[in-house]
Amino acid sequence: MTKSAIYAGSFDPITNGHLDIIHRALAVFDVIYVGVLENVEKQSLFSVNDRVAMISNSVQSDQVYVDGFTGLLVDYARQKQVNTIIRGLRAVSDFDYEFQMSLTNRALDSNIDTVFFMTDQKYSYLSSSLVKQLARFNGDISEFVSPYVKGRLEEVFNG
Amino acid sequence: MTKSAIYAGSFDPITNGHLDIIHRALAVFDVIYVGVLENVEKQSLFSVNDRVAMISNSVQSDQVYVDGFTGLLVDYARQKQVNTIIRGLRAVSDFDYEFQMSLTNRALDSNIDTVFFMTDQKYSYLSSSLVKQLARFNGDISEFVSPYVKGRLEEVFNG
Amino acid sequence: MTKSAIYAGSFDPITNGHLDIIHRALAVFDVIYVGVLENVEKQSLFSVNDRVAMISNSVQSDQVYVDGFTGLLVDYARQKQVNTIIRGLRAVSDFDYEFQMSLTNRALDSNIDTVFFMTDQKYSYLSSSLVKQLARFNGDISEFVSPYVKGRLEEVFNG
Amino acid sequence: MTKSAIYAGSFDPITNGHLDIIHRALAVFDVIYVGVLENVEKQSLFSVNDRVAMISNSVQSDQVYVDGFTGLLVDYARQKQVNTIIRGLRAVSDFDYEFQMSLTNRALDSNIDTVFFMTDQKYSYLSSSLVKQLARFNGDISEFVSPYVKGRLEEVFNG
Amino acid sequence: MTKSAIYAGSFDPITNGHLDIIHRALAVFDVIYVGVLENVEKQSLFSVNDRVAMISNSVQSDQVYVDGFTGLLVDYARQKQVNTIIRGLRAVSDFDYEFQMSLTNRALDSNIDTVFFMTDQKYSYLSSSLVKQLARFNGDISEFVSPYVKGRLEEVFNG
Amino acid sequence: MTKSAIYAGSFDPITNGHLDIIHRALAVFDVIYVGVLENVEKQSLFSVNDRVAMISNSVQSDQVYVDGFTGLLVDYARQKQVNTIIRGLRAVSDFDYEFQMSLTNRALDSNIDTVFFMTDQKYSYLSSSLVKQLARFNGDISEFVSPYVKGRLEEVFNG
Repeated sequence: MTKSAIYAGSFDPITNGHLDIIHRALAVFDVIYVGVLENVEKQSLFSVNDRVAMISNSVQSDQVYVDGFTGLLVDYARQKQVNTIIRGLRAVSDFDYEFQMSLTNRALDSNIDTVFFMTDQKYSYLSSSLVKQLARFNGDISEFVSPYVKGRLEEVFNG
Repeated sequence: MTKSAIYAGSFDPITNGHLDIIHRALAVFDVIYVGVLENVEKQSLFSVNDRVAMISNSVQSDQVYVDGFTGLLVDYARQKQVNTIIRGLRAVSDFDYEFQMSLTNRALDSNIDTVFFMTDQKYSYLSSSLVKQLARFNGDISEFVSPYVKGRLEEVFNG
Repeated sequence: MTKSAIYAGSFDPITNGHLDIIHRALAVFDVIYVGVLENVEKQSLFSVNDRVAMISNSVQSDQVYVDGFTGLLVDYARQKQVNTIIRGLRAVSDFDYEFQMSLTNRALDSNIDTVFFMTDQKYSYLSSSLVKQLARFNGDISEFVSPYVKGRLEEVFNG
Repeated sequence: MTKSAIYAGSFDPITNGHLDIIHRALAVFDVIYVGVLENVEKQSLFSVNDRVAMISNSVQSDQVYVDGFTGLLVDYARQKQVNTIIRGLRAVSDFDYEFQMSLTNRALDSNIDTVFFMTDQKYSYLSSSLVKQLARFNGDISEFVSPYVKGRLEEVFNG
Repeated sequence: MTKSAIYAGSFDPITNGHLDIIHRALAVFDVIYVGVLENVEKQSLFSVNDRVAMISNSVQSDQVYVDGFTGLLVDYARQKQVNTIIRGLRAVSDFDYEFQMSLTNRALDSNIDTVFFMTDQKYSYLSSSLVKQLARFNGDISEFVSPYVKGRLEEVFNG
Repeated sequence: MTKSAIYAGSFDPITNGHLDIIHRALAVFDVIYVGVLENVEKQSLFSVNDRVAMISNSVQSDQVYVDGFTGLLVDYARQKQVNTIIRGLRAVSDFDYEFQMSLTNRALDSNIDTVFFMTDQKYSYLSSSLVKQLARFNGDISEFVSPYVKGRLEEVFNG
C-alpha cells in the first residue's frame, strides 16, 4: 500500500531545513504532497506560484507533488485523501504551537494524525524569515537555500 | 468576608477555556469581576460591548460581573477595590509572559497578587485566535465556544 | 464560609520561599493545612517531626495547621475535607511536573483543584536542596531560611 | 515494501500512553518491534520478561513484535535491520532529552532516524513512574493501564 | 591588550536592565560599543538619534561608545573591528532566539562570538515594551529607567 | 590588566564540548582556572586526579591551569582571586539551573559574576554522561572526546 503524507507551510521561501525534512520523510513515505499555504492575513515575500516553483525546482523528486492551498489544513488533507501530516522539529521549534496545531487537527478530524521529523542539527536555527533578513543585507545564504532560491532572493533584494 | 477576584483579558471572543477558569475560580472566590480590555493598539474582531455581551450571555452567574476597561490592570483592580487577579494556565501558556505580568503588577502595587488556575486538559490548546481561525474557514467550533458565541462568529464570517 | 486549602511538600527544610507562598495564600484562604510528606523512597535530612517543628516555629499563625502525612495527596485532602491544593510557582519551576501532578490529582478526584501562587522574585531560585548544599559548606543562609531553621541546619552540619 | 520501525523503552510497566503511540504508529508502519531495555544501572519494578509479557498481553496485534535488549539502541536497530525509531511526545516531554538521543543515534549511525508521534491529550501527563506511585497507594489506575497490567501491579503492591 | 565588545539592540528606550548588562560587561571588557539598530521594518517610538542620546545620557562612562547602525550585526562588528557580541539573559529570555542569532552570526563570520551576561534578578521581567506600556498609562516607571529616559517618555505620552 | 576566569565542573570526563568552551573563553580571558569539583555526594567514574590529568592532557595551553576543589564555587573563586565564572550553554542546557546557580553565587558574593559562552552546534547534545553511556557499550566516541580521554575510557570499560 502506498504511504502518503502532507507537508504544509508558508515556504516563503523553502530552505535547506525544509528540504532536509522532505528528504527524511521520503525514507518513511512513498509520496509527499507539499502544500503551500496562501494566507491572506499574512503578507508574503513571494506569491504562492513563485513559492510552488521554488519548491519544485529545489526538490526534483517524482515522489513529491507541490501545489498551493487556502483554508484549513484538514480540508487540504481530506481533498488529497491523506491522513498523515508531516512537521519538522527544530531545536528552536515552538513546541506549544506544534502541540496546539496537532491536537486541533485531531479534534477537527480524528483520522488525521501528525508525524514529526527532527531536522539536521546544522539547520536547527534556520528559518525562512532568517534567510530573508540575511538576503536583504547581502549576507551569504549559500548554505541555507538551494541555488535557485538564492537566485530568486537576489532578484528581489538586489534586482 | 466576601472573597473577590478579577479576571481580565481580551476575550475576543470568550472560549470554553475561559469559562472553565471562571468556573474553577468560583470554587475559591465569591465574586469575580471579568474585565474586558479595550486595547487601542491591537485590532479586535468584536467591539468591547459585543465581547461583554458574549461573556454575560455565556456565563450566567450572579457571582460574575462583566464590564470593559482601558489602561493598566492594577488601576482597574484598585477601582474595583479587589486585590487578587486570576489567570488561567494552559499547557501552551507563555509562562514567561505570565511571570512578567504578575511581577510587574506587584511592582506597581504590592497589595495586588495573582492567582493561577489550570484549565481543563481538553481546553489546553484552545485560544480565541484559534477559534477565529477555525470559524473563518467553517471549521466546527461547537466544542470550543458557547452556542451564543458560535452564532456571533458565524454572523461575522458567513453572515 | 471558611475557605481552606492544603499546602503539601517535603519541606526538608522549609525555606523563606515556602513561607512567602503561605503568606500570599493567607490573603485568599482563611485556613491553610501544611502537610509534610513522609516519602519512604526518598531520603530526607530531617525527620517528619523535625520538619513539622521547623514549619510551626517559622510560621506562627493560628490560621496555619501543620502535620505529617504519607500516601497520596488527594487522600490527605479528603481526610482534611479540603478541595483546594496550593502550589508555589518559581521562575525555576518544573511546569511540566506541576501540570502532571495537578491533572493527576483531578483525575483521581474531580472535586480537588490546584491553585498556584507566584513566589516573590527574590526567592525565585531558592530551594530546600540549595539551602542544604550551602549549609553543608558554611555558606551564609540567613536570607534563605528563618533563624530557627538556620540553627537546626548548623546543628546538623557543624554540630 | 514493508515499513518497519522500532519502539524502545523501559516500559516498567507499559501504560495506555505507550499503547496509544503504538496504535498511532501502526497507521504509518506495517511492523513495529517493541524493544524492552534491560538497564543494569537503573532498578526496575518488573523483570524484562515480565515487561515483555505485559506488552504482548496488552497489545495483541500480529504486526507488533516484543523482546528485550541491552546495550545501545542503534545496535538493536541494526540487529532488526530497521532504520526508523519511534518516540512518543507528550506535553510533559523532555524535548531536550529527545533531541539529544535522536541526534546521538544519528551520529552513531547516519542511516537511523527518529520519528515522533504525539500522544493523545488524555495521556499527556501519564508515565510509568506515575502509575507505580499511584498503585503503591491504592490510587485508581484503571484509566492508565490495561486490565492485565493493573492486575500485575496489584499483585506487586498488595499481593 | 584592550578587550572590546559590542552590545546591540533597539533600545527603544534603554532600560535599567540594559544598563545593568553594560555595567556587568565593563567588569570583563575595557571598551563597549553600544549599537542602536535602525530597523526600517519595525516602528520605533524614538528615533535612532533620540535613542543614542538617551543611552549616552544614562550611561556616562568613557569606556562606552554609542552610535546607530543598520544592516547585519556582523557587518557592524567588522566595521568596529570587534569580535565579541554581548547579550543579556533575563529569566524571560527567548533562549531559542538567542541561540538562533548567536549561531547565525557564527555562520556568517566564524571569528565573531557571543558572550552572555545575566541581568540582575530585579530586572528579570523588564523590557522596553513593558516600560512604554506603563508610561502610556501613567504607571510609575522610576525603578525601570533612568531619570532622563523617564522625562523623555513623559514628554511623548503626556507632553 | 590580566583578565582571569574560572571554569568549574565535574568533568567526568572532559568532552570536546568542554574544550570548545575553554577555547572560546580564551578569546576573551587571558587566564582560565579549570576547577574539578570533588563532590562526595555524587559518585564519579574517574578520581579527581584522573580528571585533572585528562583535562591537562587534552587542553595543553599555558593560559589554562587545572586543579581540584571541594566546597562552594564562590570560595574556590575567592581563593584564586578571580571574580568571573564561565559557564557553557548548550541547546540542551538546563537554563533554570544555570540561573539558580548564577544568582546564588551573586547572593553569596556580589563581586562574583557569571559569563556564558555558547558551545559549538555540533556539541550541543554532548555531555559526560552520554559519553560514558556510549563507551560502556562500545559506541564510537572519537568525535566526542580527545584521544587521551578515549583511551582512558576504553581502559575502564574494556580494560
